[in-house]
Amino acid sequence: MGIIRIGHININAIDIEVAKKYYTKVMDMRITHEDEDGKVYLKCWDEWDKYSVILTPNDKAGMNNIAYKVAKDSDLDDLKTKLKNYGVDVREKMEGDIPFCGRALEFNLPSGHEMILYAQKEFIGKDVGVTNPEPWPDGLTGVGAHWLDHALLMCELNPEAGINKVAENTKLCEEVFDMKLAEQVMVGPNGDVQLATWLSAGNTPHDIAFVGGPEMGLHHFAFFLDDWADILKAADVLSKNDVKVDVTPQRHGITRGNTIYFFDPSGNRNETFAGLGYLVQPDMPTVTWTEDKLWKGIFYHTNQPVESFTNVYT
Amino acid sequence: MGIIRIGHININAIDIEVAKKYYTKVMDMRITHEDEDGKVYLKCWDEWDKYSVILTPNDKAGMNNIAYKVAKDSDLDDLKTKLKNYGVDVREKMEGDIPFCGRALEFNLPSGHEMILYAQKEFIGKDVGVTNPEPWPDGLTGVGAHWLDHALLMCELNPEAGINKVAENTKLCEEVFDMKLAEQVMVGPNGDVQLATWLSAGNTPHDIAFVGGPEMGLHHFAFFLDDWADILKAADVLSKNDVKVDVTPQRHGITRGNTIYFFDPSGNRNETFAGLGYLVQPDMPTVTWTEDKLWKGIFYHTNQPVESFTNVYT
Amino acid sequence: MGIIRIGHININAIDIEVAKKYYTKVMDMRITHEDEDGKVYLKCWDEWDKYSVILTPNDKAGMNNIAYKVAKDSDLDDLKTKLKNYGVDVREKMEGDIPFCGRALEFNLPSGHEMILYAQKEFIGKDVGVTNPEPWPDGLTGVGAHWLDHALLMCELNPEAGINKVAENTKLCEEVFDMKLAEQVMVGPNGDVQLATWLSAGNTPHDIAFVGGPEMGLHHFAFFLDDWADILKAADVLSKNDVKVDVTPQRHGITRGNTIYFFDPSGNRNETFAGLGYLVQPDMPTVTWTEDKLWKGIFYHTNQPVESFTNVYT
Amino acid sequence: MGIIRIGHININAIDIEVAKKYYTKVMDMRITHEDEDGKVYLKCWDEWDKYSVILTPNDKAGMNNIAYKVAKDSDLDDLKTKLKNYGVDVREKMEGDIPFCGRALEFNLPSGHEMILYAQKEFIGKDVGVTNPEPWPDGLTGVGAHWLDHALLMCELNPEAGINKVAENTKLCEEVFDMKLAEQVMVGPNGDVQLATWLSAGNTPHDIAFVGGPEMGLHHFAFFLDDWADILKAADVLSKNDVKVDVTPQRHGITRGNTIYFFDPSGNRNETFAGLGYLVQPDMPTVTWTEDKLWKGIFYHTNQPVESFTNVYT
Repeated sequence: MGIIRIGHININAIDIEVAKKYYTKVMDMRITHEDEDGKVYLKCWDEWDKYSVILTPNDKAGMNNIAYKVAKDSDLDDLKTKLKNYGVDVREKMEGDIPFCGRALEFNLPSGHEMILYAQKEFIGKDVGVTNPEPWPDGLTGVGAHWLDHALLMCELNPEAGINKVAENTKLCEEVFDMKLAEQVMVGPNGDVQLATWLSAGNTPHDIAFVGGPEMGLHHFAFFLDDWADILKAADVLSKNDVKVDVTPQRHGITRGNTIYFFDPSGNRNETFAGLGYLVQPDMPTVTWTEDKLWKGIFYHTNQPVESFTNVYT
Repeated sequence: MGIIRIGHININAIDIEVAKKYYTKVMDMRITHEDEDGKVYLKCWDEWDKYSVILTPNDKAGMNNIAYKVAKDSDLDDLKTKLKNYGVDVREKMEGDIPFCGRALEFNLPSGHEMILYAQKEFIGKDVGVTNPEPWPDGLTGVGAHWLDHALLMCELNPEAGINKVAENTKLCEEVFDMKLAEQVMVGPNGDVQLATWLSAGNTPHDIAFVGGPEMGLHHFAFFLDDWADILKAADVLSKNDVKVDVTPQRHGITRGNTIYFFDPSGNRNETFAGLGYLVQPDMPTVTWTEDKLWKGIFYHTNQPVESFTNVYT
Repeated sequence: MGIIRIGHININAIDIEVAKKYYTKVMDMRITHEDEDGKVYLKCWDEWDKYSVILTPNDKAGMNNIAYKVAKDSDLDDLKTKLKNYGVDVREKMEGDIPFCGRALEFNLPSGHEMILYAQKEFIGKDVGVTNPEPWPDGLTGVGAHWLDHALLMCELNPEAGINKVAENTKLCEEVFDMKLAEQVMVGPNGDVQLATWLSAGNTPHDIAFVGGPEMGLHHFAFFLDDWADILKAADVLSKNDVKVDVTPQRHGITRGNTIYFFDPSGNRNETFAGLGYLVQPDMPTVTWTEDKLWKGIFYHTNQPVESFTNVYT
Repeated sequence: MGIIRIGHININAIDIEVAKKYYTKVMDMRITHEDEDGKVYLKCWDEWDKYSVILTPNDKAGMNNIAYKVAKDSDLDDLKTKLKNYGVDVREKMEGDIPFCGRALEFNLPSGHEMILYAQKEFIGKDVGVTNPEPWPDGLTGVGAHWLDHALLMCELNPEAGINKVAENTKLCEEVFDMKLAEQVMVGPNGDVQLATWLSAGNTPHDIAFVGGPEMGLHHFAFFLDDWADILKAADVLSKNDVKVDVTPQRHGITRGNTIYFFDPSGNRNETFAGLGYLVQPDMPTVTWTEDKLWKGIFYHTNQPVESFTNVYT
């Protein structure tokens, strides 16, 4: 089966105590480990593995690496071979090199982002358990994030120089990871420049996404919420906690999801993404957005360019 | 990959004109074909294949067969072999035997229900298209069903006689179809009787489900809606159209989904199931419900036995 | 202006500690006073007066009296005169006779229910304050009831004996209290028996309602919630707390409101009523429900008789 | 009782055919009359009087006058006297001067806006009728506006010149119309400049509102929707119809309402305001917002100045 979902994201935190408070009180995550280097490991209530976010103390925001889980250990062998055949330099990591995980593969996407693949991580369990579980746990104080859902990476795009790391990453995800290209934005005079892509490893509209920009970086990572009603509650919670909101509640044309964008205390952009959107299947035709409808695709309600949304990232 | 989703269900309609009106006006499906035998083929606006429901004129309600789509043609060869090795008698169907479909496998589940597997069906496309699609189409007049989501089959269960077709079906789905057992209800003095199971072929809580009863039959088939707000609208629409409602809006403990149960004009039970519920993954532990919490699992808000729900089926 | 809203309801509690836990943890009310007789006074977070519910220790459920607030002190003089002229025996209460309230009028409705009118009650304030208030307070653990919204009283109805206390109460509310008859149910062979009425003192569909039955009693009292999303959350909370639910989430045809009915630990029926429903105005025509559509009016989704709903009251 | 609600607003339409299409298809209003001057009269499905919006052909956007309904004919006499005693010049209009209305009072608010008071308008009835009504009518194609809810008028404010028409209008509404000051924004070095006010004639947070600006004008008029779910649907509908959206879905701190702002084809700002917000009562303390929390009050989620929102009006 190969890749099944995003496993965790390792991001920087400028003030680790402030970041801990934010991710626990506002996002409702739980700290499951803190190591001697000051790194903090957190999980959401609806996740069963040890952690999905690692906060690494640093003096600036940004992503250190992003990890995806594969279905079984032997998938790592298959993927190692496929990556090498594709020309990717793969570093093999031993069990424990990635904390609480089994052996892993580490490599860089064509865009330069460091990616990790692993098959096993210490199991903790959902907060509601596996026997007669309640639909949600008591004691939530914030937005009640269910799980880390996906990330959007900024990739260098310079058509005049012949550089399009969006297209290169996308090709790799399709050919090596058997991901499904759910949606894409095609721009340029001939509509042949792949500006942005949304790729799925299962039935949800995206497990990873790429957008072109002047240089590589992290645009945002997203947590799942049930629906539009949770979006209102989340937006209220963000305001109560004076979180800097980037984009207020609305619908994406792309993925159909309901969304809010905001910044964690270090400046990393977060999203709450609500609703299934639609069911991705291997035989679903890829959706294409054209340049003239680009912003309707991104922000279906605003329907206008929001420059900061594409210019500001870490 | 094997099975990817429910493809279609072939059900009886006592008065075909009344049924057509119901599935088009109330459920918002579209008729895509009517054949010389009076069978009617319908699809939902968010589906791309030719049909997901076949209405077969008959003098009583019930299901004739249920079909699942596999990812690719060669999966049919693999599954034929696996089914045969498992001891299942498989009938091979030629292209076109199943209308608008490629070659197919036909067989009976241990419970006796006729199942079909196919890899190809004529493509029509979603009503919103693939280029700059709107999130939903104009002109919906009813509940706006997105897609056929799953079915629940009643299977003979007689522990004293050593008969448990729920368990047999489940075992086949897990071992032959690589489906994931998302949830189960275990009853009996020792808690070892598998009364009901929910199995997933992807990331959603169920593509097929089985419940034990005195004899085999169809309990219901379900259409997907986005969320709880759509459930209210759907319940209003059902009342406006004098549809017989079986269970008014509430949450399932099992799957966490929001639901309404009601009957089509022939007496086949329908469901609108809303929300993702949660994300199924291969490594997600199976949820188990015990006998004392059975009804909280089925109807989280009612939290009491509803006899008609388990006794009435077709 | 006369009557402006329901002020408080005095109900019995069989086990006062259990009742306190229920009204605080599940309904999110706050205890503002407990007196030497063991009575407990509670308010909701969105109310500003000292209390809206009085729990009186007793060995059976039921309502002791119901109080409405009038706009200003002189309204009490006007209403005393109007009530006396109408033939009602009015008992005048001194300041403090009704705890924390100014002088008051006490009398019995034609149905026998004891009603109190007062113009002043000790002020506490909403939990969110009056300066730059948050839209909702932190720390809610249950359904987050906004305010006591209305009550439905059962009144003796025996058309053959010429007894209709529903009609008598309604006439008094219209003529003496200037309430607006928002909706009514008319039954009987000639459709001239006023079975139930909903009366408004302002813009909401009902501040008080009456339904006919074999004998007088309390049918339910209701708390306001914002909307259908809050109804789902409330139903989840009730199930988590093993509250006995009478009617699961659905819409009323009458008032259009979204509702759940359930019982407090003593057996008093509570409701969470969500949404404005519609805006009542003095010039809005009264809505009439006929006998054949009675149950569609009461439960728009169920659309069938629910005997326990009309037979069980305190 | 005096004023009971906003009755209608007379606004300009630059292209009357485009405006008719917008108000009928997008806002779901119904044309009830067109006169020889090309004026178009429309009502919402949940209103019972002949019209609530008059479109007057003109070459620029803007409001011609705003009308409020009073409870009974004799209120006009009382209000005429009170207005005159307050120093307001009142023009008496004969029955029919205001189309389909009885006699009326016409005058200018201190801010200069023309206001009309009337007690009677031709009755048409809600689209759902008064006997066993459905909760909403079939055939809605747009946002399904329930009723004209309120208007916000821009009033000249120049503290240095001692001009504050917000305060003057507010004082008149409180003293002459017995309106309740639900909320206010106080700014300036001493917090004594009343920048904006929200006044209620009943139980809803505002029937009219005033905000200070460089010159008088119309900021927006608003239609009522049930809840946050309707806001999502409305925002989708606006985008489908390429309506220019000013402020995407979010919550107001002031009134707690859920909102979208957008422009009709002529450039008049519209709002869909959803939810009751809270229940206004004569004894509810006025809510005050201070200058440092002004934008949190206006846009609770954005929580930042939106210059166009206060600078652009007609």
